[in-house]
Amino acid sequence: MNGAESLVHTLLLAGIDTVFANPGTSEMHFVAALDRIAGIRCILCLDETIVTGAADAYYRMTGKPAATLLHCGPGLANGVANLHNSRRARSAVVNIVGDQATYHRPLDAPLTSDVEGIAGPVSAFIRRAESAASVGADAAATIAAARSFPGQVATLILPANTTWEEGGVVATPYAPEGPETVASETIEQAAALLRNGKATMLLLGGQALGEVPMRVAWSISRHTGAKLLLERSPARLARGRGRVQAERIPYPIDQGHAAFAGVEQLILVNTPPPVSFFAYPGKRGQLPPEGCEVFTLSTPEQDGATALAVLSQILGAADVPPADPGPRPERPQGKVTPEGVAQTLAAVMPEQAIIIDEAISFGRGFFPGTYAAPPHDWMMLTGGAIGDGIPMAVGAAVGAPGRRVIALQADGSAMYSLSGLWTQARERLDVTTIIISNRKYAILLAELAGVGANPGRTALDMMDLTNPTLDWCKIAGGMGVEAARAETLDELGTLLEASIARPGPFLIELVV
Amino acid sequence: MNGAESLVHTLLLAGIDTVFANPGTSEMHFVAALDRIAGIRCILCLDETIVTGAADAYYRMTGKPAATLLHCGPGLANGVANLHNSRRARSAVVNIVGDQATYHRPLDAPLTSDVEGIAGPVSAFIRRAESAASVGADAAATIAAARSFPGQVATLILPANTTWEEGGVVATPYAPEGPETVASETIEQAAALLRNGKATMLLLGGQALGEVPMRVAWSISRHTGAKLLLERSPARLARGRGRVQAERIPYPIDQGHAAFAGVEQLILVNTPPPVSFFAYPGKRGQLPPEGCEVFTLSTPEQDGATALAVLSQILGAADVPPADPGPRPERPQGKVTPEGVAQTLAAVMPEQAIIIDEAISFGRGFFPGTYAAPPHDWMMLTGGAIGDGIPMAVGAAVGAPGRRVIALQADGSAMYSLSGLWTQARERLDVTTIIISNRKYAILLAELAGVGANPGRTALDMMDLTNPTLDWCKIAGGMGVEAARAETLDELGTLLEASIARPGPFLIELVV
Repeated sequence: MNGAESLVHTLLLAGIDTVFANPGTSEMHFVAALDRIAGIRCILCLDETIVTGAADAYYRMTGKPAATLLHCGPGLANGVANLHNSRRARSAVVNIVGDQATYHRPLDAPLTSDVEGIAGPVSAFIRRAESAASVGADAAATIAAARSFPGQVATLILPANTTWEEGGVVATPYAPEGPETVASETIEQAAALLRNGKATMLLLGGQALGEVPMRVAWSISRHTGAKLLLERSPARLARGRGRVQAERIPYPIDQGHAAFAGVEQLILVNTPPPVSFFAYPGKRGQLPPEGCEVFTLSTPEQDGATALAVLSQILGAADVPPADPGPRPERPQGKVTPEGVAQTLAAVMPEQAIIIDEAISFGRGFFPGTYAAPPHDWMMLTGGAIGDGIPMAVGAAVGAPGRRVIALQADGSAMYSLSGLWTQARERLDVTTIIISNRKYAILLAELAGVGANPGRTALDMMDLTNPTLDWCKIAGGMGVEAARAETLDELGTLLEASIARPGPFLIELVV
Repeated sequence: MNGAESLVHTLLLAGIDTVFANPGTSEMHFVAALDRIAGIRCILCLDETIVTGAADAYYRMTGKPAATLLHCGPGLANGVANLHNSRRARSAVVNIVGDQATYHRPLDAPLTSDVEGIAGPVSAFIRRAESAASVGADAAATIAAARSFPGQVATLILPANTTWEEGGVVATPYAPEGPETVASETIEQAAALLRNGKATMLLLGGQALGEVPMRVAWSISRHTGAKLLLERSPARLARGRGRVQAERIPYPIDQGHAAFAGVEQLILVNTPPPVSFFAYPGKRGQLPPEGCEVFTLSTPEQDGATALAVLSQILGAADVPPADPGPRPERPQGKVTPEGVAQTLAAVMPEQAIIIDEAISFGRGFFPGTYAAPPHDWMMLTGGAIGDGIPMAVGAAVGAPGRRVIALQADGSAMYSLSGLWTQARERLDVTTIIISNRKYAILLAELAGVGANPGRTALDMMDLTNPTLDWCKIAGGMGVEAARAETLDELGTLLEASIARPGPFLIELVV
């Protein structure tokens, strides 16, 4: 057995059956082993940002890691932005990077690079295989690291000769580590805070955004009067009818501060202390008001769901069903507005839809209008590295077959990962992409206005996506994805319904 | 004056008048300063791989650096693959990366990342501005580092508050350092080798690939009987009628070894010792035969052009005009072959065309057929990080207005940087892109065959770009670039001629 074969068998033993791949010459023996040994679905992506973004979303949907297959340092580098998002999502990714043969590396051939250096900023764990005999154990260690609760990016560097040399040994994967338990004392301190009469808020993130822990937090909130808020960009959030209605931390810094106004005590559940996305002259980066006590019930690495359950028992908080969101809205007509798009979504999305939200500025108000939608999952851009939407749609659709993925996609951000549309077509994934074609970097125009100057041509040109105008139907068509343009809410609703009714991908260019 | 204004003035003082940009919020004050202060052309690119690839090619054409404008660590990461190519091309790039404000960084907001870590593997120099007062001097130091002969990637990290705070000081740039002089003794040793009667080869790279040093090397070769060979992937090579005809090191390892067969002495001029691109089981990575003496006349950092001139004087080698390549070929007809494409290029390209060659496997035989073309420059993928062709075409066209850029572009590689077509359209760049649409990763199919197995569906699917077939005319049209399809050499020639006769970009999908 060669090293590559031991790797494939070790992946299979660990239950890893999906590889998002963009291979090159140095990975050819790994490809050959994937070919010879049945059991792993290999999904070709035409650049690495699709590979890593898909692996992230696959984990968010399935709770088990996919592997990547990347080619040398530069191939890894192309995937780093979405590994940054994975890191912020705390997703488990088994990130496999081919490299020059151990004895070839010192010769500094053109593609030779500092792979550890490139992997470092996004990897919680890095292992370089030294021989065919070590590959299996190296893979098992990488998988174990990836699965450390709630999930990490773990990188395995695979020199070419460690894949083709004989002497591979299959390794038994370690049992994944569960979350750390929250100390009883900590839960009791939280209970005391919730009883002391001060203005209190629960801020939920990570694991606490599942249907059950959110309902527990909601019940605590009803029992104690504490406010409930969600982290700004959930990796995955259970939403829709029958689930808790709650807002996220707003993106604009002033609205972010306003969301915490008057809060005297902030209890963090699986989320770090809230800060503004960027700094602005003369404004505070920490969002809770000065003097607010910030108390951590659970870090993202801890079992906040159980801590919330124990906390509700200590408080004697009875289970309270989520508020009734009212009737499901009708499909709206007329001019395209953010509220209208949300209402269309709520009217049309099927049960258990998966919403991928890289709508950026246009999408900030989508939450209230979709509370009455059928139960669905909502995934966001966790690390701010734009270009994650199309890849996430790939990974979510692969991870959750039978569920319709609806990707709300800003046009500027979509330009980073167009080739993911091709993978959607090849794999016949049930993805409807709605390109929000505002033909500008709207978020930057707002920021530029904040700088105060009267912008001139040079600045405006750097935020403008016209001249020429992108034609999304042509772009999608070029990738083998059928597409159509919508200029009204009625057209949007009709196209969205039609796309849901048929299998495979579709793209709607929504002109706004 | 704020820090951003001091930066713009310092760039201008250093003669930097071109910025390839993909800005974000943390660079908004830099954008505002570029807007207020006249003199710098800002070119918007829709992802960072276009920014860095364009900056590389701009330097290759102009010999002066452009600046980049990148957004935080993930934005930089998207540009790392082409910075890897820049590093291998030894191009000067003033790589400017915005980051979180100094006091906001510790709060670990979502886009916060290890920017130095991401920059490290591709940067010869990294400087982080600490205050508005230091930005000017930091920029001057970065520019000086970038210009160290022959050129380097130098990265300036710009925390947002250092741009908006007052107290900026314009810095006078240092004079660029020229190349190191080669010691007379070294040149005399080379002369002795060339006179000792052994089978000798001159291998030229970097600065030695200009028209004059190549002619000197050719004259030495004629005088001494030494063979002449060029490095595998020149950053820029002077070619065509009246210039020296020479081949490059072949890519396939066996052909690479064959090119050096029988060589007893190898003299390196501005290039490191030749090695195979990848390792293969049981094959030697060093290309010169065992026992071959490898002698460095000049490293890439040294003045090989002058060393060659002195060497020719010592040897008494008279100037010899390059060989006559014969008449300029006629436009060929019929089926598309690599030789036919080369002949079409030779027949149709205008004087001083700039050829961007990311044709990968299909393009290996383009050299002999184009010796009789008018004088032109040829640029290659230096670091093997695919996806550089479309960005390089942007940078070359910006750097050399009035000259037609012809980009020979493999389809698989083109998928990494599609959005560069949009920038070509917006800036009305005179670029003709020829997509070599073989609808597969042809290079990998060859490599897979080398692995010896009989590939199955899983492996073949990872090298196949059909299902669905990419439609390049639609993709280009979506980006605002006019396009047409050619299926014969005649159609290729007609479209190529037509595209050259009109300003602006055009794309030809060449079905092969």
